[in-house]
Amino acid sequence: MKPSLDGETVTRRALVGPLTGVPGVRVAEATADQVPAIVALLVDDVLGRDRESGDTAVYDEAFATIDADPTEHLLVLLDERDTVVGTAQLGFVRSLSRGGAIRAQVEAVRIGESLRGRGVGRAFFEFLIDAARREGAVLVQLTSDLQRGGAIRFYESLGFVHSHAGLKLALT
Amino acid sequence: MKPSLDGETVTRRALVGPLTGVPGVRVAEATADQVPAIVALLVDDVLGRDRESGDTAVYDEAFATIDADPTEHLLVLLDERDTVVGTAQLGFVRSLSRGGAIRAQVEAVRIGESLRGRGVGRAFFEFLIDAARREGAVLVQLTSDLQRGGAIRFYESLGFVHSHAGLKLALT
Repeated sequence: MKPSLDGETVTRRALVGPLTGVPGVRVAEATADQVPAIVALLVDDVLGRDRESGDTAVYDEAFATIDADPTEHLLVLLDERDTVVGTAQLGFVRSLSRGGAIRAQVEAVRIGESLRGRGVGRAFFEFLIDAARREGAVLVQLTSDLQRGGAIRFYESLGFVHSHAGLKLALT
Repeated sequence: MKPSLDGETVTRRALVGPLTGVPGVRVAEATADQVPAIVALLVDDVLGRDRESGDTAVYDEAFATIDADPTEHLLVLLDERDTVVGTAQLGFVRSLSRGGAIRAQVEAVRIGESLRGRGVGRAFFEFLIDAARREGAVLVQLTSDLQRGGAIRFYESLGFVHSHAGLKLALT
């Protein structure tokens, strides 16, 4: 359960619920025992394959930090057997710009192979966008690797505008 | 003072210090009384002009939320008279991807008119990048409006790679 970013509110809520139009799949906040399944989804990706490590301790520690951060939600998609079949991280950042606005940011979205082509990605994003709106965000933002042309077109079909350059500086 | 994102560490430190190569200008964590000056910098911008409100209460509340968030640093550049002459927000996000890495994210960078063309932006970014490295980030990321061609070239000159599309969905 996570507190709202609205400083005036003490409401806490988890971002959970069914995926509209996808029977048998629901969204839940990730739990520690689901970390290996989430990492497996991150590894099963053309760009992620070489970026992940075999050391499970680093992921467990990262999970504990995310779980303790009231502004970050590590989410999973679960099927009817409670198997992890997708993941995304939804974070909220307050800044002074745009009238002190809350921005929602999506990172590390993965949908399991077995569910692709069934509209699960679209339904998951509709869930994330709706959750961001309910949390008071004025904007949802994400970056997508320019090599993933299909992904960029998918985000544009959801209403995202490719208005910005996504710039990354590796420190290692 | 802000705690480290490293779950194992209880060290807290503010991100403060001189700007290398720019005598008389230093970086400090913003305080509540500096909020109007920071907002003035946000307004004094071709893209920001129409995005800011005249209501100071929303900025004060946003400041309080940022200030209470251990993963966000609202920074100011101060001259010898303690006048606010620049600002940036540096945040840290932990995720499971890239081996449970910490990413640093820069938002809402503005340098006051009086200081432009003196290498202040470059020195400020070198400070931010160094701070991100010291906090254990493996990556610094930001998005820059595609209309700001000069800004994108500036970031590339600092070593940032324009590898991603920055996608934004307005919720209002």
